[in-house]
Amino acid sequence: MYDVIVAGAGHAGTEAALAVSRSGLSCLLVTTDLNAVARMSCNPAIGGVAKGQITREIDALGGEMAKAIDSTGIQFRMLNLSKGPAMHSPRAQADRVAYTAYMKRALEEEVNLDLLQDTVTGIEQREGILRGVRLLSGRLVTGRAAILTCGTFLNGLIHIGMDHYPGGRTIAEPPVTGLTENLILAGFEAGRLKTGTPPRIDRRSVDYSRVEEQKGDENPPPFSFSTPTLKGRAQLSCYVTHSSERTHEILKTGFDRSPLFTGKVQGIGPRYCPSIEDKIFRFPDRPGHHIFLEPEGFETNEMYVNGFSTSLPEDIQIDGLRSMKGLEEVKLIRAGYAIEYDYFPPYQIHSTLETKRIRNLYFAGQINGTSGYEEAAAQGLLAGINAAADILKRPALRLKRSDAYIGVLVDDLVTKEMKEPYRMFTSSAEHRLMLRHDNADIRLMHFGHQSGLVSDAAMERCRTKMRAIGEIKALTEKTAIPAEVLDSLISKQGQPHAASGQKISAAIKRPGMSLEILMNSLPPFREALLSISTDKEAHQQVEIDLKYEGYLKRELLTADKIARLDALQIPSEYNYSCIKGLSSEGVEKLISHRPETLGQASRISGVSPSDISVLMVHIGR
Amino acid sequence: MYDVIVAGAGHAGTEAALAVSRSGLSCLLVTTDLNAVARMSCNPAIGGVAKGQITREIDALGGEMAKAIDSTGIQFRMLNLSKGPAMHSPRAQADRVAYTAYMKRALEEEVNLDLLQDTVTGIEQREGILRGVRLLSGRLVTGRAAILTCGTFLNGLIHIGMDHYPGGRTIAEPPVTGLTENLILAGFEAGRLKTGTPPRIDRRSVDYSRVEEQKGDENPPPFSFSTPTLKGRAQLSCYVTHSSERTHEILKTGFDRSPLFTGKVQGIGPRYCPSIEDKIFRFPDRPGHHIFLEPEGFETNEMYVNGFSTSLPEDIQIDGLRSMKGLEEVKLIRAGYAIEYDYFPPYQIHSTLETKRIRNLYFAGQINGTSGYEEAAAQGLLAGINAAADILKRPALRLKRSDAYIGVLVDDLVTKEMKEPYRMFTSSAEHRLMLRHDNADIRLMHFGHQSGLVSDAAMERCRTKMRAIGEIKALTEKTAIPAEVLDSLISKQGQPHAASGQKISAAIKRPGMSLEILMNSLPPFREALLSISTDKEAHQQVEIDLKYEGYLKRELLTADKIARLDALQIPSEYNYSCIKGLSSEGVEKLISHRPETLGQASRISGVSPSDISVLMVHIGR
Repeated sequence: MYDVIVAGAGHAGTEAALAVSRSGLSCLLVTTDLNAVARMSCNPAIGGVAKGQITREIDALGGEMAKAIDSTGIQFRMLNLSKGPAMHSPRAQADRVAYTAYMKRALEEEVNLDLLQDTVTGIEQREGILRGVRLLSGRLVTGRAAILTCGTFLNGLIHIGMDHYPGGRTIAEPPVTGLTENLILAGFEAGRLKTGTPPRIDRRSVDYSRVEEQKGDENPPPFSFSTPTLKGRAQLSCYVTHSSERTHEILKTGFDRSPLFTGKVQGIGPRYCPSIEDKIFRFPDRPGHHIFLEPEGFETNEMYVNGFSTSLPEDIQIDGLRSMKGLEEVKLIRAGYAIEYDYFPPYQIHSTLETKRIRNLYFAGQINGTSGYEEAAAQGLLAGINAAADILKRPALRLKRSDAYIGVLVDDLVTKEMKEPYRMFTSSAEHRLMLRHDNADIRLMHFGHQSGLVSDAAMERCRTKMRAIGEIKALTEKTAIPAEVLDSLISKQGQPHAASGQKISAAIKRPGMSLEILMNSLPPFREALLSISTDKEAHQQVEIDLKYEGYLKRELLTADKIARLDALQIPSEYNYSCIKGLSSEGVEKLISHRPETLGQASRISGVSPSDISVLMVHIGR
Repeated sequence: MYDVIVAGAGHAGTEAALAVSRSGLSCLLVTTDLNAVARMSCNPAIGGVAKGQITREIDALGGEMAKAIDSTGIQFRMLNLSKGPAMHSPRAQADRVAYTAYMKRALEEEVNLDLLQDTVTGIEQREGILRGVRLLSGRLVTGRAAILTCGTFLNGLIHIGMDHYPGGRTIAEPPVTGLTENLILAGFEAGRLKTGTPPRIDRRSVDYSRVEEQKGDENPPPFSFSTPTLKGRAQLSCYVTHSSERTHEILKTGFDRSPLFTGKVQGIGPRYCPSIEDKIFRFPDRPGHHIFLEPEGFETNEMYVNGFSTSLPEDIQIDGLRSMKGLEEVKLIRAGYAIEYDYFPPYQIHSTLETKRIRNLYFAGQINGTSGYEEAAAQGLLAGINAAADILKRPALRLKRSDAYIGVLVDDLVTKEMKEPYRMFTSSAEHRLMLRHDNADIRLMHFGHQSGLVSDAAMERCRTKMRAIGEIKALTEKTAIPAEVLDSLISKQGQPHAASGQKISAAIKRPGMSLEILMNSLPPFREALLSISTDKEAHQQVEIDLKYEGYLKRELLTADKIARLDALQIPSEYNYSCIKGLSSEGVEKLISHRPETLGQASRISGVSPSDISVLMVHIGR
């Protein structure tokens, strides 16, 4: 009997298993192929817009992904540096093989964790309470909880041109059959989604004189708050080319053999990450699209053709690739393809990721209809934390929309209708100025510490930083910059004459002003500040907090309003049908989604503001 | 259009692709999973009795296996050191993951080699001449030759207990369907074989106080003639336990659910490598069997349970394991299983490994009914060399039984009836005193050099060594050991008094005598010898050649006789039916096997000595 059984060892499963076993509970991780742990089946990269923030949040909560990419990254860049701090997003190319090796090792180092190469084909329950899982080998393994992280394996079907093959992730991996059907028998509703991947090419066959080089940053900040630095790391370049009208003409000749356009693919694909044929079809006026050539590691010639996801026939893929600048002689190593798979629409889970139908059964990752390694890892971590918390009789970790992108992600899952694979965007977060990558530790590390996944030492470092931020802010309140100094600073920037001095906390809000400029201009202030803390991260937080104070306050106000609604719990067996005044669509949606709070209820489409007012009256009583 | 297309990237396919591309020809290597190159799907070890010799031969011929294991071995031992030099056999445990990474890198470094992740599902021919291969993606790739190395993937079926699943190598890898059928349509005959693998366990769950440690050798000789030394290499220990009568009782309770004993498995398995249930069944009086626990790498907790191959149900496997000393609390990571797969009885290939039915199509490895990584790699190398030689209009490499274990292997394949997967044994070699691991370079390096796979520098080193051997031998002929010196040496060993002096070449034949003892006793001889060469390997060759001179001469004599028969070619379309005096069974076998030489004909079972006499009269004309 294990405390928790995790099915699947992708990005969700590894985080789940690590979280459980690091909580001191016994965990069994079952996966069909122990050689393929945390495999990057699509792009060889971690992070990016919104996803970089999630990776930092995973780290603050005590997950492994950020450490893994810090250890195995081959190119690091901070995206959107020209925009405000809310948009700054770390991204890294990974060495695919090294990433898997890192995660396999991390799993094997856990004393409470057992690995088993087998396939979970069913769950065992008694009266709605999970008892264990059934394996392909026929064995029943009992557990107090189970976390299913099935990726694209459930009845996976791979499409290239008009042919299709059963495949769990690639044609080299068989799908999992029987588990969807087993869950449907248990009362769950399943759906079908689609995703795709571009071809891989031989990097030796690229003409580098005809593509644009994209180098990594010189001294990139690490993803993990525990990685001291990435300075001096060897990095590889990416390269940029673009599709042309000729490319599009070539690809169009394969449209009559496209599984997407001929109706062969039933599952719904992500609009935000369209195949190249989708892009050509939907934007017929665009003469070209950017295509990024990304290396897959130091030790391999394989290169990922980002932006060229396709399920057109292989001959068309090759001709299309060769029509692009620098790829005239390119050699294909792996063809692109589309994959269809089963998921379980996530109105069926709580915000803890426990399923509503079966107690102690959790879903995480693509099984909930999401897309992306970071989204999967975040859910795996959360499911692991909550499965452990339940057994250890600790409070569940429920992240609010104002706490973290992970909070937004889960809240969107449990309240929104899903029309395509869910991917995290900054635009989904109403509090995105609060949810920055740079303050993920301040926002979340205490949760990770409470869960036992963040060490006392790491937590203390975070607390020291937070104290320093507070003290420096107080210093900026009580220190003024004299009029003449301020004047000489702002006159350089062509700003109007400053009649009088100003508190540092106010002066810093001026455009072009920074904490560093002020420190350099006021040596006593500089000295006082550095005597509080020399931590550059603390200085950065002070600057952002002060510069964006007004916006942040406004976000906090909205967040508070939402939090009040989210604090109002709805009993899980609440009888909506008896309440007068609710709209009939509202009742239907409330019954299917069974929101945990009034806040969740208010975000379910089809539940109207007047429904919420009616509910508030009843729940408030 | 490629020169050569290789299907499969296991131990045969990697050597084949390297041999072709290193010959300067263009090569395409097609494999379903580029993450699984040269995967050690069964025991994590290279070498052993006869197999160690093959590995050294592969190296002498310019193959990669010996270099790969030198680079990624985690324990090295010379087996049978207490026996004569013919039985000395190097063996090493490998780091499974590192071995794959090494071979993937080796492939990727070849400029003439393209990799493609896809599956070969058929061959294309015109009038019995190969034109190319058909891929799962539907694409036809043309080639002047093709080498099929399909391992256990052809219609692979995995058995654990009474359940079975399609699987190419593990349940995580789908089988290849369609290729067998395509080849049958082309006129080939297919058969069915079976093999199996033991469970893997968590090495942390072994009680090391209750098992026997087996350490690596302190300064083991390398496998490759180009690896200078393995001195100072970190090594891991193996451990020995044994099955008990209780183990056997437990396993017997699963016999009614054994796929072997209930007739579910149709393929024939290797008797020499029986499952533990086979051993119990066939040797009911043996109270126990040795079981070796072998680590799978520095970076993993997985451990291979050598000697415990089984396809009994998983629960029985666990109970059986736990009944053994030191494994009382053992945790299973991967269950053992049996796998059935298609092969093509090798009377259908020439000794070049080209198929008789389709010109420029070669078979190598398990598709020919063999078992073992080394046997597969040797065939891959040979097929690669010969496919290239044919295109380059070089003579084919046909190894004689007296040249190499690889010669014995191929000759056995093309002449013997196959009743089980073929494995190399020292007992199969009539010239095994000649076919030692220590002289593989002297025997074979010139072949590798002619094929362009061995560098001039390496060949020159070998020639220098051979010259030194010759000169030292001449020195031992013209140098005598005086009677009194000889007497003092042999009296220590209780041998009868030596009346007179003796040539060194004669004295060294005495029991207990060695070149080193003689060198130490005769400083002028020592000086003269060292002035010829200080190469310890050359010294060792001289000693073995002189000590075993009589036996070696006798072997050479037999080899010559065989060679005379092997020199008599039989035309490929020879009309046996017209020859009077042949036995009817002889005619039948000669037509099905179509031997290339009278030597081969003489080794086909069913062809009698009188058939050979009759043939000799006709062929001699």
